[in-house]
Amino acid sequence: MKFILNTNELVSALSVTTHALSPRTTMPILEGVLLDASEEGLRITCSDGAMTISSLVEASIEEEGRIVMPGRLFVDVVRKLPSAEMMFSAGQNMIATIKCAGSRTTIAGKPADLFPSLPEISAESKVELPQPLLRDMIQQTSFAVSADESRKILTGCLLEIADGEVRMVALDGFRLAVRMAPISPDINKMSAVIPSKLLQELSKIVSGGEEDMVTMTFGASQLLAEIGNTKVYATLLEGEYIKYRQIIPTTWKTAVKILDRGQLALCVERASLMAKESKTNLITLTITDSLMTITSNSEMGDVYEEIQVETEGDDLKIAFNVKYVTDVIRAIEDDEFILHFNSGVSPSVIVPVEGSGYTYMVLPVRLNA
Amino acid sequence: MKFILNTNELVSALSVTTHALSPRTTMPILEGVLLDASEEGLRITCSDGAMTISSLVEASIEEEGRIVMPGRLFVDVVRKLPSAEMMFSAGQNMIATIKCAGSRTTIAGKPADLFPSLPEISAESKVELPQPLLRDMIQQTSFAVSADESRKILTGCLLEIADGEVRMVALDGFRLAVRMAPISPDINKMSAVIPSKLLQELSKIVSGGEEDMVTMTFGASQLLAEIGNTKVYATLLEGEYIKYRQIIPTTWKTAVKILDRGQLALCVERASLMAKESKTNLITLTITDSLMTITSNSEMGDVYEEIQVETEGDDLKIAFNVKYVTDVIRAIEDDEFILHFNSGVSPSVIVPVEGSGYTYMVLPVRLNA
Repeated sequence: MKFILNTNELVSALSVTTHALSPRTTMPILEGVLLDASEEGLRITCSDGAMTISSLVEASIEEEGRIVMPGRLFVDVVRKLPSAEMMFSAGQNMIATIKCAGSRTTIAGKPADLFPSLPEISAESKVELPQPLLRDMIQQTSFAVSADESRKILTGCLLEIADGEVRMVALDGFRLAVRMAPISPDINKMSAVIPSKLLQELSKIVSGGEEDMVTMTFGASQLLAEIGNTKVYATLLEGEYIKYRQIIPTTWKTAVKILDRGQLALCVERASLMAKESKTNLITLTITDSLMTITSNSEMGDVYEEIQVETEGDDLKIAFNVKYVTDVIRAIEDDEFILHFNSGVSPSVIVPVEGSGYTYMVLPVRLNA
Repeated sequence: MKFILNTNELVSALSVTTHALSPRTTMPILEGVLLDASEEGLRITCSDGAMTISSLVEASIEEEGRIVMPGRLFVDVVRKLPSAEMMFSAGQNMIATIKCAGSRTTIAGKPADLFPSLPEISAESKVELPQPLLRDMIQQTSFAVSADESRKILTGCLLEIADGEVRMVALDGFRLAVRMAPISPDINKMSAVIPSKLLQELSKIVSGGEEDMVTMTFGASQLLAEIGNTKVYATLLEGEYIKYRQIIPTTWKTAVKILDRGQLALCVERASLMAKESKTNLITLTITDSLMTITSNSEMGDVYEEIQVETEGDDLKIAFNVKYVTDVIRAIEDDEFILHFNSGVSPSVIVPVEGSGYTYMVLPVRLNA
């Protein structure tokens, strides 16, 4: 096989596909990068067994062929080459030669037939989303998935399409995050649970603007996400997702409008420093009219913070695991948003001031008052 | 005790002194930051036992006093405060209160008399150097110190003043780096071996320009470096340093002028990737007239690089541990420099094209030809 392309092209394709490169694995071939030179161009594929990423790059193909290069070494060598044309060639012996400017590197590859082939997906449903929307959906929900492998289904995010809405949902038993957006009502109803690791990697790849789309094709147990010339394959999580809609409270006794997310973030961060010194990791919010105080304490001392808010309804004292609060402050986009409470022991709901694009529900920790 | 200052002032002083903060230590008091409010201002001191850094900050002192604050927590809390005036107060019970904007933090401190007092140094000699010079001297030599704790003296850098020259020297038995600069001949002859860990920290602190000086005072076993309002104390290494001057060869059979440091750096980096795959970690330089090739190999393959040089003298083939080559390429400042060789088995010397400001000597690895 033999092809010529600019090192920059190869580096940028590798930087995408290597998100699926296995650092160490029980299948040594997966430590490699599959190069497939054919008339469609140069296809570069990495797989960690659960997720496969494959990118097509334009290259001048002088001789078709396939080879698996040792992943880490190949990527490091290519990254250090000057930005120039490089020629890659390999013979029957699977010894590859890379020539670029005054540099010549030979690296022993492996036959490509050892590398698993790309999954075939029989499309059951298909959805197209703008890349920034998918990125936001992932960033606003995936932090709330469960880390508990014994309830595997909750380690993924539910993607749900129904009634002209697309929703992404994550929950771990203590909190729940839902991001919603309108979608064409022509798209068929569907739902699938996507592993959060895949979503994390996907959110790094979908860097495009509003006009750039991701096409997601769902098979019975597989997902194919297409982003430009890149295809991402992954296995979906199997099982029934929790019926989450019925657990979100829809009425409240106290509504607190936060006026400055940045200020709240800093107050909570400071309270978090002291909370982390104790084993409970708690912060307490106390709402008295338009004053909200945020307090925490440990053997080392205590922190008291106050901020001005707009309150409707009853005064309230409520405590949370500080991580569940910092996570949502980071995820929410708006400067102003609303906290809904029913009592110090009932779930709280955090929503934007307008619209229903985002909902975060979190259980409080009962205070020994 | 009670003082008022801007959080920015405190944060920047802490960022200097905490270079000496012990993360964990057999002396728990050293996990703390000593605050000493007196008529001279607020003095902030951290120590890891071997090195002590003390900075004086302007503050409005309302009540004098001393306290040791738990280091990590205190620093984290102060860093998260808004950029504004803060008030620090503490009573007999050693409970400190920090108030800033709407934030109030209390932290339990410890009595200051547990904290070791600053060393007293009976000055035997004193030298003043511009900060950028000291920084360069450290960066160009300290990488070559020995990591072998059984020859303690070689884990430090020799600072030597004689005949109107100041020199910093490091060597580890395989290579040697000397940085030299002219100095006023009025300064007395002296020499001392400074622990490289101290020099590494010092090089982060001496961030000033040409007019900013470091004053170094040497006692029998102690060093005090003064940088603006900051004092750095450290214990010198004891023992006789190796007589290094006599081991640097002064004649050569081959001189190779490197014309482009950046290009050489990239070639060596690529060769280094393959060298690291083998246990020997070797790169080979082959000089044939004005062509220098850099090669390396391992079970995974090989790398061949060529660059144009200007050569005087014999052709030559010589091999080095690649780390000893990458280190000096990073340390040398000039785009052009000269490699001096006598044979494939004798020490090589790397020097600037002009002047004698820097000398690097490295032993080759004998090739099984």
